Amino acid sequence: MCQLLGMNANTPTDVMFSFTGFATRAEEHKDGFGIAFFEDKGVRLFVDTSSARESPVAEMVRRYPIRSENIVAHIRKATQGRVALENTHPFVRELWGRYWVFAHNGDLKNYAPRLHGAFRPVGNTDSERAFCWLMQELAKSHASVPSIAELTATLAELVPQVAAHGVFNAMLDNGQALWAHCSTQLHHIVRQHPFARASLQDDDVTVDFAQQTSPRDRVAVVVTEPLTKDEQWHAFAPGEMRVFVDGAPLA
Amino acid sequence: MCQLLGMNANTPTDVMFSFTGFATRAEEHKDGFGIAFFEDKGVRLFVDTSSARESPVAEMVRRYPIRSENIVAHIRKATQGRVALENTHPFVRELWGRYWVFAHNGDLKNYAPRLHGAFRPVGNTDSERAFCWLMQELAKSHASVPSIAELTATLAELVPQVAAHGVFNAMLDNGQALWAHCSTQLHHIVRQHPFARASLQDDDVTVDFAQQTSPRDRVAVVVTEPLTKDEQWHAFAPGEMRVFVDGAPLA
Repeated sequence: MCQLLGMNANTPTDVMFSFTGFATRAEEHKDGFGIAFFEDKGVRLFVDTSSARESPVAEMVRRYPIRSENIVAHIRKATQGRVALENTHPFVRELWGRYWVFAHNGDLKNYAPRLHGAFRPVGNTDSERAFCWLMQELAKSHASVPSIAELTATLAELVPQVAAHGVFNAMLDNGQALWAHCSTQLHHIVRQHPFARASLQDDDVTVDFAQQTSPRDRVAVVVTEPLTKDEQWHAFAPGEMRVFVDGAPLA
Repeated sequence: MCQLLGMNANTPTDVMFSFTGFATRAEEHKDGFGIAFFEDKGVRLFVDTSSARESPVAEMVRRYPIRSENIVAHIRKATQGRVALENTHPFVRELWGRYWVFAHNGDLKNYAPRLHGAFRPVGNTDSERAFCWLMQELAKSHASVPSIAELTATLAELVPQVAAHGVFNAMLDNGQALWAHCSTQLHHIVRQHPFARASLQDDDVTVDFAQQTSPRDRVAVVVTEPLTKDEQWHAFAPGEMRVFVDGAPLA
């Protein structure tokens, strides 16, 4: 099983603290890592086939405070598809003049959706097949970028069709919102005023968010397993999809 | 005007020497840089809106010897489109289950091609519009990845239609071949056995390729202006397109 990390904020926020804790878990998830940062409509994607603990690319991410409102990261333990760059999450595609970023944790059995549209997998993972199918079906459902509410309604119809094939903990982000679906394991937290201190679960690192934030900042973090030991994380229910906008889950 | 750098090799080759010389030219081209490395079918794309001289991302590229058979890099001086990540070359799209990387130096005047297919620009440069149009027309011309000869024939029909709108020095790469088109300025060199020493034009750096290579290695480098002062660079003719495979231009 891989692990997922997503962040959605109402102001450009760096993810160094969360990524440090997340990368610590890469010992067991050594078959690559990837992280995508939106910067307005643009996206930076860093991927590597070595572990997030050892990769010089991951080292740069930890040191370089890239600020973003939407981030999706993934550490990989290969279940389907060999260890190769083209099989490393997150995956990126363009639709309606927007980039879409996708990462998946889980395993889809005998999953061969009919791909007759403009999105074809480059690698050979179940995950990229699922992403291409979702993009294809979104492209059929709307003529241009719809509202977040409309996209959420369409995804609520599409995602269960993928999830029916196995375990589908997944994140999709278009720079405006982060959609997260839980099959088996996913947690979220919203950090907002008054900000407190937090200590990483897996590492001897503590941060005082109050010193790094302004009172109107709000940041949602979604992750496979809680990253900190002194904050209140909320578990997703199996089959639950949540959408995060401006650092908070929509009702 | 921006500057372009492309590399096509018959064995995974690092581009540190060439990129060092290329990045030196970023003083005048300070509106961002980008570099894409193919690794088999996968691609790594590093982009930044700061100068290649100052960007920590460029610093990592200079230090980290990523080896690739196909590389496209670009340093940007904005002519159309604001300085933003979504306007930074190279651009990447997927077609037929392969990634395609594109970078452009030049300026297309009043260029508004009809984009009715699956490729839409995310930013607002003439360059990304041209790339989307090329991808759209390639998608119409072939049902799946054609041979390099067939692709070259199709591109030979399409590219002049873009170039008719202004200056179109451009590179397209799909990890199998590098297509380079010259409107005004482009040079190439093939480095092969017996390898010699070379000294950068803009920087006090010399490399002895014989110490870093094996006799069967072959590397083609394509660049706006020659990078070294002691090698024989070949200028493209205006309107000329060349395709490079396994480190050499095809006849």
